[in-house]
Amino acid sequence: MSLEPALRRQLVALLGADWVRDDQVTRFSYRCDGLTLHPSLPAGVVFPGDHDQVVGVVKLLHAAGVSFLPRGAGTGLSGGAVPTTGAVIIELVRLNRIGPVNEIDRTIEVGPGVVNIQVSHAARAHGLYFVPDPSSQKACSVGGNVAENSGGPHTLKYGVTVNHILALDVVLPDGSAHRVGGESWASPGADLLALLIGSEGTLCIVTNIICRLTPLPPAVQTLLAVFNDVQQACEAVSAIIRAGIVPAALEMIDNTVIRAIEQTISAGFPTDAEAVLIIELEDIEAGITDELAAVRRILGQVGTHEIRVAEDEAARARIWRARKEAFGAIGALSPSFYTQDGVIPRGALPRVLARVNQIGRDHGLTIANVFHAGDGNLHPLILYDAHDPDQVAATHEVGRRILELCLAEGGTLSGEHGIGLEKNSLMDRVYSSTTLDHMAEVRAVFNPNARLNPGKMLPEPGKCGDIKSVAALRAKSGIQV
Amino acid sequence: MSLEPALRRQLVALLGADWVRDDQVTRFSYRCDGLTLHPSLPAGVVFPGDHDQVVGVVKLLHAAGVSFLPRGAGTGLSGGAVPTTGAVIIELVRLNRIGPVNEIDRTIEVGPGVVNIQVSHAARAHGLYFVPDPSSQKACSVGGNVAENSGGPHTLKYGVTVNHILALDVVLPDGSAHRVGGESWASPGADLLALLIGSEGTLCIVTNIICRLTPLPPAVQTLLAVFNDVQQACEAVSAIIRAGIVPAALEMIDNTVIRAIEQTISAGFPTDAEAVLIIELEDIEAGITDELAAVRRILGQVGTHEIRVAEDEAARARIWRARKEAFGAIGALSPSFYTQDGVIPRGALPRVLARVNQIGRDHGLTIANVFHAGDGNLHPLILYDAHDPDQVAATHEVGRRILELCLAEGGTLSGEHGIGLEKNSLMDRVYSSTTLDHMAEVRAVFNPNARLNPGKMLPEPGKCGDIKSVAALRAKSGIQV
Repeated sequence: MSLEPALRRQLVALLGADWVRDDQVTRFSYRCDGLTLHPSLPAGVVFPGDHDQVVGVVKLLHAAGVSFLPRGAGTGLSGGAVPTTGAVIIELVRLNRIGPVNEIDRTIEVGPGVVNIQVSHAARAHGLYFVPDPSSQKACSVGGNVAENSGGPHTLKYGVTVNHILALDVVLPDGSAHRVGGESWASPGADLLALLIGSEGTLCIVTNIICRLTPLPPAVQTLLAVFNDVQQACEAVSAIIRAGIVPAALEMIDNTVIRAIEQTISAGFPTDAEAVLIIELEDIEAGITDELAAVRRILGQVGTHEIRVAEDEAARARIWRARKEAFGAIGALSPSFYTQDGVIPRGALPRVLARVNQIGRDHGLTIANVFHAGDGNLHPLILYDAHDPDQVAATHEVGRRILELCLAEGGTLSGEHGIGLEKNSLMDRVYSSTTLDHMAEVRAVFNPNARLNPGKMLPEPGKCGDIKSVAALRAKSGIQV
Repeated sequence: MSLEPALRRQLVALLGADWVRDDQVTRFSYRCDGLTLHPSLPAGVVFPGDHDQVVGVVKLLHAAGVSFLPRGAGTGLSGGAVPTTGAVIIELVRLNRIGPVNEIDRTIEVGPGVVNIQVSHAARAHGLYFVPDPSSQKACSVGGNVAENSGGPHTLKYGVTVNHILALDVVLPDGSAHRVGGESWASPGADLLALLIGSEGTLCIVTNIICRLTPLPPAVQTLLAVFNDVQQACEAVSAIIRAGIVPAALEMIDNTVIRAIEQTISAGFPTDAEAVLIIELEDIEAGITDELAAVRRILGQVGTHEIRVAEDEAARARIWRARKEAFGAIGALSPSFYTQDGVIPRGALPRVLARVNQIGRDHGLTIANVFHAGDGNLHPLILYDAHDPDQVAATHEVGRRILELCLAEGGTLSGEHGIGLEKNSLMDRVYSSTTLDHMAEVRAVFNPNARLNPGKMLPEPGKCGDIKSVAALRAKSGIQV
């Protein structure tokens, strides 16, 4: 079903005909995000041009009783931006204003449609940058980063997106608009800002973002540590952390991924290495020499095969390009792959990584690893052939077993890709039914009919936990709203 | 009214007679916290010894329909731990277990009754520490830090308490117990952990805390920069930030506070200085030399009168002792003082500080300033005589005008002292009624009858905009502090 005619007319009157699409090509195109091509067709896609138009669109959809969801660049990996049948997608790409940099308060105001890396580009002349740097940073939107509370290699030292946002302008599912947070770092009272960040489009639609910027480090050193043994690489991670060093990034890439990278972009990584670590140190010029010496000493102690230090910015860029394009490179090895995202306590890394690869072998599948080792945030890529039903089934089983392993080690379901519709049925594995009730009740405060991005993040009613309506919540509390 | 006899018997059966107190001395003693001596008398005070006893106590109080509130060390400055009439205080001082340090995951598990500084003492042998360091850190409890989302001088670089907590065990007002957060840094789904931290005892009672620890810096340099002009000191703050330097701490102390410090603990601060900045740099040994040189250059450019670098740990400790005991030292200057806590965007510091002092002069009162300059977190201390009703009224007015000024500059009501019952009637000045409804509804998810710590943080129904000052509370109670 495309858009209902009366609603369509209202949307066209508000946005203009160019910005309201419900033709078959558009609807079929918008079934997917970075995770999946979903079987459900949206009713249509609208492209509001500013905050007021978002408010207008949401009011129309609210009045029409239609489900809807926001969408940024569609790079998400947990299905957060794919529609349920008949939902309207609110595409925020046109909200791409980049405000001036405030040097003293270290802030910048941007629209949700701004591409992540553009924020750092705008800030660079002021000696500042925006820390969250997911692999997709050349494509993903800041609005999507806020929705998913995105991480990236450099969030090891500086924290994930929630640590880099001061305020949001949001539109609730009833079309009301609110500023949450403020220009200063403090927001007394219930921390609604932290609640909205990472809510995966289930609580609000973001129309404006005040980002915190961070000073560019005066000096950066990027090392590639080459290992003949994956366990040694894991030991190096633990030893660096135990020594009290906080690298800006500490990434691991295993042999399978190294070979894929070399087949595609030829970064000069040694294809016979069992693993490499990318270790980035940030400091002022004099300090970095000592820190580099300390890391070299540790790497020597654990038996690192070779240490390469990037001698200039071009060499450094080459290393990071390899890391950030590693996912794409896997296409050279396998017709399909599935990216798992699990978190474990850092100390469990050596035994978990060995087990992950064993799980793959148990099911006849290769697992490639490229991940944020310093954070204990695994990204096992399960290589399979989507045309082979047995391999598809095995991939599901391997993904499930890896998550089970993470949970058994005291970890959790996702580090940065989110829950979306990929893992919402697993939420009862990490949270009690009461905690899930609390989350659903909190959602009901902002999104009482779950008409905004239904079926995402939280388990669906009857699937696990018992979702209470806002009416029940209000009855329980006796508060009148 | 002391405890109702049947409830008292149940509590004694659970905790033992020693740990259930409702004699007059105890009840009168527990009317106060660091802000005020409240006129309301609690029904009694109970001292559970562990998590299970907290659960048992809360279940009994819930069944009896009695209001109750948790209490740590009672050092809070916004009245969060003072009782309403007839409420039962659950004193958590006995939950003071300190678990072992996990070096790889950099964590430690502590009870809410553990004194803040003990956490860093326990971690020190492992080269780690607990970042939040309020001035009261030798007395305040970690549970209180969690409740108030406490800051401190060193949170400029590393963030406030919410950035240093991985998980909480909590008891909800119905006596149910939950783990919120986890041993790894990621918690997908609604961020209930961030919501509970800083909720000022209005959402849950914390019984166990997993803290994140941070590596001790290899080298620390602490400078005292002496200024003949407060505006120059403000300019120095801006210039340091603008240069992309992130000091571990950046604190300002004005002449009034300097004189108070010298009268009491003789830290060797120059009593003729208009202001001093305490600037602490953390880095590795070689790095700190460069950073120190950069700060010296900036201080020279803005016209700093004198720069003193702490030559050893004793000199450094003397500077910090002066800073942390500054509030107490004010007692040498004035029979009473009221500590305001407001936040402004950092860029507004020079003009706001001048206005703050002018507001004091307008009302014939001295204002002393000792505050987190790098964070834009003001702590104007209004000196007055509690025996003089005119001065009490003027203090009330000065405090109100300072907050108005912070709000007009785009700042907010509190940086770290919380809202409590001191500022809850002002919450509608920074938040819309819809946002306050959202906060109340979120509270209702956890604390549906507001029986846990009633009347705190959120405005009471019908009282929004109705200013209840500390001075008025004191006047009403007829008690001099």
